[in-house]
Amino acid sequence: MVVAAAILPELATQLVVPVAAAVGIAFAVLQWFLVSKVKVAPERRGEGSGSAGAGGGKDGASEYLIEEEEGLNDHNVVLKCAEIQTAISEGATSFLFTEYKYAGGFMTVFAVLIFVFLGSIEGFSTKSQPCHYSVGKTCKPALANAAFSTIAFVLGAVTSLVSGFLGMKIATYANARTTLEARKGVGKAFIVAFRSGAVMGFLLAASGLFVLYVAINLFGLYYGDDWEGLFEAITGYGLGGSSMALFGRVGGGIYTKTADVGADLVGKEERNIPEDDPRNPAVIADNVGDNVGDIAGMGSDLFGSYAESSCAALVVASISSFGINHEFTPMMYPLLISSVGIIACLITTLFATDFFEVKEVDQIEPALKKQLIISTAVMTVGIALVSWLGLPYTFTIFNFGAQKTVHSWQLFLCVAVGLWAGLVIGFITEYYTSNAYSPVQDVADSCRTGAATNVIFGLALGYKSVIIPIFAIAFSIFLSFSLAAMYGVAVAALGMLSTIATGLAIDAYGPISDNAGGIAEMAGMSHRIRERTDALDAAGNTTAAIGKGFAIGSAALVSLALFGAFVSRAGITTVDVLTPNVFIGLLVGAMLPYWFSAMTMKSVGSAALKMVEEVRRQFNTIPGLMEGTAKPDYATCVKISTDASTKEMIPPGALVMLTPLIVGTFFGVETLSGVLAGALVSGVQIAISASNTGGAWDNAKKYIEAGASEHAKSLGPKGSDCHKAAVIGDTIGDPLKDTSGPSLNILIKLMAVESLVFAPFFATYGGILFKYL
Amino acid sequence: MVVAAAILPELATQLVVPVAAAVGIAFAVLQWFLVSKVKVAPERRGEGSGSAGAGGGKDGASEYLIEEEEGLNDHNVVLKCAEIQTAISEGATSFLFTEYKYAGGFMTVFAVLIFVFLGSIEGFSTKSQPCHYSVGKTCKPALANAAFSTIAFVLGAVTSLVSGFLGMKIATYANARTTLEARKGVGKAFIVAFRSGAVMGFLLAASGLFVLYVAINLFGLYYGDDWEGLFEAITGYGLGGSSMALFGRVGGGIYTKTADVGADLVGKEERNIPEDDPRNPAVIADNVGDNVGDIAGMGSDLFGSYAESSCAALVVASISSFGINHEFTPMMYPLLISSVGIIACLITTLFATDFFEVKEVDQIEPALKKQLIISTAVMTVGIALVSWLGLPYTFTIFNFGAQKTVHSWQLFLCVAVGLWAGLVIGFITEYYTSNAYSPVQDVADSCRTGAATNVIFGLALGYKSVIIPIFAIAFSIFLSFSLAAMYGVAVAALGMLSTIATGLAIDAYGPISDNAGGIAEMAGMSHRIRERTDALDAAGNTTAAIGKGFAIGSAALVSLALFGAFVSRAGITTVDVLTPNVFIGLLVGAMLPYWFSAMTMKSVGSAALKMVEEVRRQFNTIPGLMEGTAKPDYATCVKISTDASTKEMIPPGALVMLTPLIVGTFFGVETLSGVLAGALVSGVQIAISASNTGGAWDNAKKYIEAGASEHAKSLGPKGSDCHKAAVIGDTIGDPLKDTSGPSLNILIKLMAVESLVFAPFFATYGGILFKYL
Repeated sequence: MVVAAAILPELATQLVVPVAAAVGIAFAVLQWFLVSKVKVAPERRGEGSGSAGAGGGKDGASEYLIEEEEGLNDHNVVLKCAEIQTAISEGATSFLFTEYKYAGGFMTVFAVLIFVFLGSIEGFSTKSQPCHYSVGKTCKPALANAAFSTIAFVLGAVTSLVSGFLGMKIATYANARTTLEARKGVGKAFIVAFRSGAVMGFLLAASGLFVLYVAINLFGLYYGDDWEGLFEAITGYGLGGSSMALFGRVGGGIYTKTADVGADLVGKEERNIPEDDPRNPAVIADNVGDNVGDIAGMGSDLFGSYAESSCAALVVASISSFGINHEFTPMMYPLLISSVGIIACLITTLFATDFFEVKEVDQIEPALKKQLIISTAVMTVGIALVSWLGLPYTFTIFNFGAQKTVHSWQLFLCVAVGLWAGLVIGFITEYYTSNAYSPVQDVADSCRTGAATNVIFGLALGYKSVIIPIFAIAFSIFLSFSLAAMYGVAVAALGMLSTIATGLAIDAYGPISDNAGGIAEMAGMSHRIRERTDALDAAGNTTAAIGKGFAIGSAALVSLALFGAFVSRAGITTVDVLTPNVFIGLLVGAMLPYWFSAMTMKSVGSAALKMVEEVRRQFNTIPGLMEGTAKPDYATCVKISTDASTKEMIPPGALVMLTPLIVGTFFGVETLSGVLAGALVSGVQIAISASNTGGAWDNAKKYIEAGASEHAKSLGPKGSDCHKAAVIGDTIGDPLKDTSGPSLNILIKLMAVESLVFAPFFATYGGILFKYL
Repeated sequence: MVVAAAILPELATQLVVPVAAAVGIAFAVLQWFLVSKVKVAPERRGEGSGSAGAGGGKDGASEYLIEEEEGLNDHNVVLKCAEIQTAISEGATSFLFTEYKYAGGFMTVFAVLIFVFLGSIEGFSTKSQPCHYSVGKTCKPALANAAFSTIAFVLGAVTSLVSGFLGMKIATYANARTTLEARKGVGKAFIVAFRSGAVMGFLLAASGLFVLYVAINLFGLYYGDDWEGLFEAITGYGLGGSSMALFGRVGGGIYTKTADVGADLVGKEERNIPEDDPRNPAVIADNVGDNVGDIAGMGSDLFGSYAESSCAALVVASISSFGINHEFTPMMYPLLISSVGIIACLITTLFATDFFEVKEVDQIEPALKKQLIISTAVMTVGIALVSWLGLPYTFTIFNFGAQKTVHSWQLFLCVAVGLWAGLVIGFITEYYTSNAYSPVQDVADSCRTGAATNVIFGLALGYKSVIIPIFAIAFSIFLSFSLAAMYGVAVAALGMLSTIATGLAIDAYGPISDNAGGIAEMAGMSHRIRERTDALDAAGNTTAAIGKGFAIGSAALVSLALFGAFVSRAGITTVDVLTPNVFIGLLVGAMLPYWFSAMTMKSVGSAALKMVEEVRRQFNTIPGLMEGTAKPDYATCVKISTDASTKEMIPPGALVMLTPLIVGTFFGVETLSGVLAGALVSGVQIAISASNTGGAWDNAKKYIEAGASEHAKSLGPKGSDCHKAAVIGDTIGDPLKDTSGPSLNILIKLMAVESLVFAPFFATYGGILFKYL
């Protein structure tokens, strides 16, 4: 019990959290400043020294001279880059504004719904009510919870939208700068792309934390002693964040793959022109897609996970011993973890930007992988510190009707197991999707006998890649669940997400490099520059797969934590598979990911067909387009993607948002529990396998294209039958890995958080069908 | 209570069951006799009148004259057919003997395992023990249960093997006869193929029922009053049947698709020769595959389902009120249902063979579909009758620790809902896989933009096709579960399987027609004959998909019933998702179908690559092969398929067989319950989507080839880019629909029945890992 004396005083906690958030934001601004030193407006000299940046000073001037100079001062190239960058940025902005119009409408309607549903529980009464868990105490009226839940929802939604938007802005700001820096060397380009990713990562992590912190403190002014109500209302923040992620992931996913598949089908397969060729009318839409799908979409997805796991941990903690006794510091344990996470990631980032330097192409991937390892190692120490300073040595938590005693070191284990499981998932994902290892090489080899065997091997690879991540997740769940019930699971999810700033930096790095390559191609830059950006991009592909693995793994833990919180709040003590209600829920829930994937894949397929027709039409009707003497009509293609995604995201969105409401209202909380559990255990498998299958096909194609080994050479070169088979696999993989797969994260998380927010309503009025039968 | 007086006396029940089985077998023999009248040895006249068969007498002689005569008396063609038939039959027999050698070894080892595990429960004591459920009574020792379980296991295994073998024999007996009859008209050929299917269907249904009936009566001589022990031992029958199905489905599935994919990749895609061309070295292996995979495999799968659902119903019933009071007739309710099912199917068959006649190509599919509807309608009456005559008006059943009162009409509803859900699943499957409807046409249309969109649309179709079947299964489960707990679910499964004779007849019809077409092609028969067999085959494709739908739907219900019986026997009263043991079981269980599919798909992929190399080698090294002047070496290809399937089925087989043993022994019955539930709810989705995706691709290809509509013509003809894209889809679909998809039935059923058989052991010694941690 001596150890317990080490707990931080409330004041310290009140300082640590906002300070960490502020440091994160300041660091993001610094990175942005460093990136902005690369000028896209043509300028004599000055560029080189500027771009050497913070860490480049040591050998700045001399380094500049040893780098290649081709095209460095070619005004036309720089102008061209600036022009393309503007086109991409404008396309992305215009799409996001369209998307946000829909999102805004949805937000308004859903905010009203939340208020009405939750307010109706006590008949919109303004009278205080007896507390649920703190027996004998009085809590705020349901109407207040409804109002504050609604406010939290809007806050979460707006934070998510702003984060996604800023991420996209930064990415489109950085892409051309990366291209220009690639003229000076691969290391320079890497630094620009990575810093820009870091801007997004830190901005998102820090602002998410900050808004949550402020909301808790402001809401606390009203709620005072009623922490149950306070943290119940705060869950609206998670719902808001996640429902905007629905738009980001699904809408953005459809957008990006409509453009990508459409562009590839005509450009690569019919017209035999390279990827990102400026003659392809869909090329701008394709590049816009990387920004709205992989940057804004991924950002809002991970922000949603972060917000939800924090909320799940908080709502479960509010009914623990320290929640009931109002011990502020232990209560803020989830936020302290995130605060330390920002600092840990900051240190980690310096390893990539300042302590070491990437000079060769083959140093890129190790540098990115080192980021994961370093952040995990540093963060493990951070967790130990927070667990020691932030928690009483012993406390009790709520375990579905029972009490459970937990020690602070046990909670440390919960957070740490989540963190390390994330690393395991990351590396397994890398093993199955990087072309440095045998699985992808086998897939590439199967192209010898055509596209059919390529697809069969790719699907089998995806299925197989599920095994170890599932064991890793199962082990984390078992440990954290056994040690600290649902609170353990929630903090394990937070552990996995605690290095979110680094994770996002790496994730965002990928599409930025991809875009940089596209700009190099479109601006007509030399082959050697394109090779450098391709190397950046290839590393980005693998890290993108790792990022998706993280996103899915954390989504699984988050959903389970939310599920646990929902079950607690709905007053259920067992979810027994041996009751018909629960079992059919489980069965139907396990079906939902298939339904959802069918919609999203079909959407991409149909929209891509439209895109193909338009691209073909332009090639056939615009004279001189193939010869490069006429310009294609990029805007129409951008419009097709925009229209398709805004229209096509409605049915899958409706499926996700309406299922909990319908099931909860008509079939009751037991069936809804079954549905959530079924969707979770089934969805996570499809999500992992779809992402990895797609990633493997992409890299199998790249493996053949690169021809770096004897084996790879025997399959190539570009344009061979093998390569054509590989391109077909890559095209199939696009919607799997970038639309339907990652969207499933949203499905499982969003249904769970929505159920949690509406739990008080379902507990009171739910299951009307069974009540009257 | 007056109604209860209507119950059949024990003696009547003792007569009805074996008589129904005998009638079924006699009917099968009659059908076989009618088929045998078609002579494959060349003979002058006599053929025509003979083949008119039982129903053809009315217009026999005149009909013969109006049919086409081309090639009718061409001795060479008949000789050629006989020769090919012999080759296929020999290949199939040799494969099955090889497979059975492995199966025999496995059977021996596993029989010993069952005996040792179950015998060890009471330390191999020969002393009687107190009963589990009938408090105060004495039951037979665990050692006796171990011995009889082992015997039942061997009985089930042998019955399954014999059924599969006979089915294959009949199919290879019928294929050439169907070809020869096709010379006289499509109606004649249809009758031969359908009758042969009926031989298999009735033989399997009747012998399964008969052996089970005999086993119960013989075991009863020893067990006497101890019905608990008796029916616990009988569950070994289900395990035996299902474990042989593992060999049939997985081994046969790998065999058939290795040959099919290998033959297509070189023949159709590289050499541009038609399907079943005699120049293709893999063509005999391909035709053998249809018989060992689709006939013997499907037969053993459905036999396994039938045996398991009967056992599940019996073991649950043994602890009902009539089980404890030893009322023989109600106890035999499951067997009575199957008895009436045989009669209902017999009547149904007459509608296809005698009451109506197929004269035109477009009457085939409706005729087969009518079989489903008629059998369902007739059987509904049969179920009502059995429920009225076979059950007391009110009885109580065991519901996980509680008692539940059930009325006989409620049990009627349970059986009927299963039966009708089967019909719904069948028709939905047809909608998604027949090229008469828009889903497949859309997939065909997507081939315009290449193989990639074809695959995307096909996968989306498969995912979508899961929705309604899952709702149908969920509704059946909800109703039967709510009305009569696990006994309800078990009899619902029996209801779905009660028309198994008709279902199998339709199923077997498909591969027989497929083979018939192959023989026509290989024997060099005219284009018009090939067109007729193609029409037979096309109808068979759709019905095959329907059959797979049935097989999966019934597997889901059966598994749940077995799961329920396992849980009862293991003494668990709740399977609470909110405990870490159960939840990780659920998560890992949901992963198993992916692991299993990865293995089976990869197996087919790798084995197909070997087959491709061999076929290419023969084309390259045997002079005159392409010109048709030299004969290929069929035997080597048969050997490749045989070796691949026997070798490759071991890892997936081990996964299925070892998982329950490992989980039960080390992690205990709760975790095992989670695993079973997870595998069930996840596996059924993949199985349905994989089967339907594959079926849709197959028929999309056929749609383009047939060119029957303006739309279809615009996509064709054979050899166009669209058609090539469709062929790629078809090739990918092969392992999905014929190997990995249907094998999942076995996964979910076999794990459940194995858990049930070993439940007494797990309940006593299981979970050692948690006990010592």
